[in-house]
Amino acid sequence: MTDQRPAEDEHYVVGVDYGTLSGRAVVVRVSDGAELGAAVHPYPHAVIERALPADLAGEERPLPPEWALQVPEDYREVLRVAVPGALAAAGVDPARVIGIATDFTACTMVPTLADGTPLNEVDGLADRPHAYVKLWKHHAAQPHADRINDLARVRGEAWLPRYGGLISSEWEFAKGLQLFEEDHELYERMEHWVEAADWIVWQLCGTYVRNACTAGYKGQLQVLDGGEATYPSPEFLTALSPGFGDFVTDKLEHRIGALGARAGTLTAQAAAWTGLPEGIAVAVGNVDAHVTAPAAQAVGSGQMVAIMGTSTCHVMNAEVLREVPGMCGVVDGGIVDGLWGYEAGQSGVGDIFGWFVEHGVPAYVRDAAAEAGESVHEHLTRLAAQQEVGEHGLVALDWHSGNRSVLVDHELSGLVVGQTLATRPEDVYRALLEATAFGTRVIVETFRDSGVPVEEFIVAGGLAKNALLMQVYADVTRLPLSIIDSEQGPALGSAIHAAVAAGAYDDVPAAAKQMGKVRRHVYLPDEDRATAYDALFEHYVALHDHFGRATSTMRRLKAIRRDAVARRSRTARTEGSPS
Amino acid sequence: MTDQRPAEDEHYVVGVDYGTLSGRAVVVRVSDGAELGAAVHPYPHAVIERALPADLAGEERPLPPEWALQVPEDYREVLRVAVPGALAAAGVDPARVIGIATDFTACTMVPTLADGTPLNEVDGLADRPHAYVKLWKHHAAQPHADRINDLARVRGEAWLPRYGGLISSEWEFAKGLQLFEEDHELYERMEHWVEAADWIVWQLCGTYVRNACTAGYKGQLQVLDGGEATYPSPEFLTALSPGFGDFVTDKLEHRIGALGARAGTLTAQAAAWTGLPEGIAVAVGNVDAHVTAPAAQAVGSGQMVAIMGTSTCHVMNAEVLREVPGMCGVVDGGIVDGLWGYEAGQSGVGDIFGWFVEHGVPAYVRDAAAEAGESVHEHLTRLAAQQEVGEHGLVALDWHSGNRSVLVDHELSGLVVGQTLATRPEDVYRALLEATAFGTRVIVETFRDSGVPVEEFIVAGGLAKNALLMQVYADVTRLPLSIIDSEQGPALGSAIHAAVAAGAYDDVPAAAKQMGKVRRHVYLPDEDRATAYDALFEHYVALHDHFGRATSTMRRLKAIRRDAVARRSRTARTEGSPS
Repeated sequence: MTDQRPAEDEHYVVGVDYGTLSGRAVVVRVSDGAELGAAVHPYPHAVIERALPADLAGEERPLPPEWALQVPEDYREVLRVAVPGALAAAGVDPARVIGIATDFTACTMVPTLADGTPLNEVDGLADRPHAYVKLWKHHAAQPHADRINDLARVRGEAWLPRYGGLISSEWEFAKGLQLFEEDHELYERMEHWVEAADWIVWQLCGTYVRNACTAGYKGQLQVLDGGEATYPSPEFLTALSPGFGDFVTDKLEHRIGALGARAGTLTAQAAAWTGLPEGIAVAVGNVDAHVTAPAAQAVGSGQMVAIMGTSTCHVMNAEVLREVPGMCGVVDGGIVDGLWGYEAGQSGVGDIFGWFVEHGVPAYVRDAAAEAGESVHEHLTRLAAQQEVGEHGLVALDWHSGNRSVLVDHELSGLVVGQTLATRPEDVYRALLEATAFGTRVIVETFRDSGVPVEEFIVAGGLAKNALLMQVYADVTRLPLSIIDSEQGPALGSAIHAAVAAGAYDDVPAAAKQMGKVRRHVYLPDEDRATAYDALFEHYVALHDHFGRATSTMRRLKAIRRDAVARRSRTARTEGSPS
Repeated sequence: MTDQRPAEDEHYVVGVDYGTLSGRAVVVRVSDGAELGAAVHPYPHAVIERALPADLAGEERPLPPEWALQVPEDYREVLRVAVPGALAAAGVDPARVIGIATDFTACTMVPTLADGTPLNEVDGLADRPHAYVKLWKHHAAQPHADRINDLARVRGEAWLPRYGGLISSEWEFAKGLQLFEEDHELYERMEHWVEAADWIVWQLCGTYVRNACTAGYKGQLQVLDGGEATYPSPEFLTALSPGFGDFVTDKLEHRIGALGARAGTLTAQAAAWTGLPEGIAVAVGNVDAHVTAPAAQAVGSGQMVAIMGTSTCHVMNAEVLREVPGMCGVVDGGIVDGLWGYEAGQSGVGDIFGWFVEHGVPAYVRDAAAEAGESVHEHLTRLAAQQEVGEHGLVALDWHSGNRSVLVDHELSGLVVGQTLATRPEDVYRALLEATAFGTRVIVETFRDSGVPVEEFIVAGGLAKNALLMQVYADVTRLPLSIIDSEQGPALGSAIHAAVAAGAYDDVPAAAKQMGKVRRHVYLPDEDRATAYDALFEHYVALHDHFGRATSTMRRLKAIRRDAVARRSRTARTEGSPS
């Protein structure tokens, strides 16, 4: 982090990335995107999954399965701790900071009063689970999502194909319907159902603006017939649940802000929290994955950005609107204002490799890795890298955590074909790496076949460090592979939006060009290996279509499993034995 | 091992079981089958797979891949060491021993001169690989077996359906053709191509008799039109390879002996080796799996004996001849004289469980097993036994070592469907146990559907000790499951044949009734679990037919693997780098 020009000539911006467990603030130089200082602050309450703790609810209150809550005050604490920390680390004069922007996990929802006060902060409501933030991975609204999907299919709702034919239990309507049905009194008290991405901006500038990204991807706001953008209709909502018909007009609808636009200016209170000057620009909110695209200088048509970690999120802009089967969504201005933003994803990537290393790798591999001074991942990667394509004789399906795109089916499961008594752990490891690359190729080809061609593949996220994995992706997709040149892509992306909101650049693409960082074409496809992978991919596609489309084997195995677990619980209860 | 009656009233027999790595002699009381003493002797040269050793060939001579040789003198050493050892352990007077019988691995072939001298013992031939015994698992004759099968199919040879439509590279003709084509001079010197099962009997009694079992199962000797039993014709053999037409008449054909018949009497030399009286009965040779049926009192129609170890061999008698698709063979008198003997098999059973424990089970399981004072197998079995049927959500194919019955395809491979991030090692372990039970059910149902019903399932071999596995087999097949009550079933079976050859019993069934040992109906099917397994078996069958019949995915993955290995070898040679 060098600063070669005199500080007094420079301006700075602050980007804040709100992740699942912590918030990270980064101070960035406006002229070239140099990251001068950063600080991370973990949320004191992290993720609340088993019970509301006594310090919040008076006494501990157990939660049902699949719940995941957070506490809004933890987000404010990031502003009070991490932002000053980053400023101190950067050693820049706060008076030279001209803007701040944030990105958030999504869809993460805050129920509030009219002034933005979260309901859990309202007297007498702190012991009500529904008063808290529902984090993106709160999955208890699956029955509500199922009903939304079933009804939308039956009614032929025009917005459904924009989401690959299926909306998620994580999104605004499913979580909202759960709140409506399970704590009606609280629902009546709630005046806004707010994305956390927008709530934090509201805290900074005192103004509530809904960002175009989450409104489209998570709230089903769509321009369907060339007219006004609309949400699902009151008729649909009433049919879903009597009394729910006013959900959009009463709780959800609000002014939309384009990404990179200014939501407002920093309030005196937020200036006191952060140590930043009152009145500087506060950008419209954003989402961690989507904001990474400008950080990687990847805002043009055909530049697909993959944020690869435990799962992968793919985002890409295009000038055209196409309905791509099985994607997560397409939203006007969803990534960059003025372009159609496409999103797709793979539910399991790094978490599949992690699961295999934890539960499928024998002690002798662990010992050999330790002997070589490597992690088990590094060791298996090094052994696997010595193989020719196809040498392991395996092909796997990467559905251990379900399939987000293009099958959109979380009842699917994982599979490895071709194992023999000669199969070794590094063989399976490599087959799993390859399976995720094949999954990406299916997504890339589906976009191409729908008239939205992918020209370049840009990787961000922790898995970019695995050179074998990156080369496999280049070979399998036959695309040049670029790597973001920042360890904190989302925060840098937020900083870019702050610079635009502050008027330092005309728009996000112009700012991205100066401030974004990418190592271009780090991995190029090798034609021999690509040809060898074609043969394996053919088998992947055959398995994909057989298990994902032709048969219900995997779905029925999950049903059998659920029945067996229920049978065991009943037996255990009857016999009074430990389950 | 108690002997309650005065020794002077009793007679004894010796059974010798020749396995892959050692020979085991057992002294057995004729009246009731009591096993009074045993001794095991490992073959000094074990299995020769990489190179002929210098002590035999003068200097070390590397062998090509897939070879597996043995040394005949090692077999004689078992007679000189293990038989006297068993006699000493039993503490019986050798003069009270009235007969000896042997069983052997098959198809294991010895090339000899006219007097039975193995070619490797002939001056000047000890450095010729083809002069040695080709052990059952010598797989280098696969190309020759492929040509035999292709030609037999084209010509519509009537013997082919008796072997499920495919003969094995392990058998007499494939191994003989390899010898003929790869060392023609040695082939010319060879006067008999002898099953080791018959060669050892020849050593004991000085007489060469071909046993009906291997002649039928491994040599394709069949009664096809109600006439004389015949081998594949000279026309077929000439079409296979010019000059090979006289193979049967010159090298193979010889007097056939029924199982349990007397091949001759013990020679003075063999009496000196063994310490047994000269002139006692020597029984016709036999095969380890087949000889186990009388040891388990399972010689009636519909009693299927499964010898379950690393692989499983199924043998069963019936009064009728039926062509059962995909079995290994049906032979007149192949198990018991006077009945049709059916053989089927599963290529991988215990070795799949062993492979998983060695290469797929993490350190934390090994540590927990050690903590509980259990082997890893015991530990995983105990955890798996706590589950309800279907609770793991998995179904597997047990083809990690190929499929012997009913698909007869060693290009198939293993598979586990249904894995998620919640899948644990005991889940996979149980799914693999179940997969082998489903494989057995396919065999049982194929027999039933072909008009050869299975009424009882009798297990011998090391896996009989796993109570969970046995219960799964009973539940999955809905058959009562009996267990042989001897740790040394094949040697006991040989002893039964020795008693019949010595005239102590009229025939093998009569001897088996007195001397065989079985715990009948130890495991009975549970209807609830059987019904739950029906649902999983339905998926097993769907996967079985998809991967075994409808698609060529597994075969093509093996071809891709072979190509990749070859490519790597070429690259390594070109670059001079270590492969």
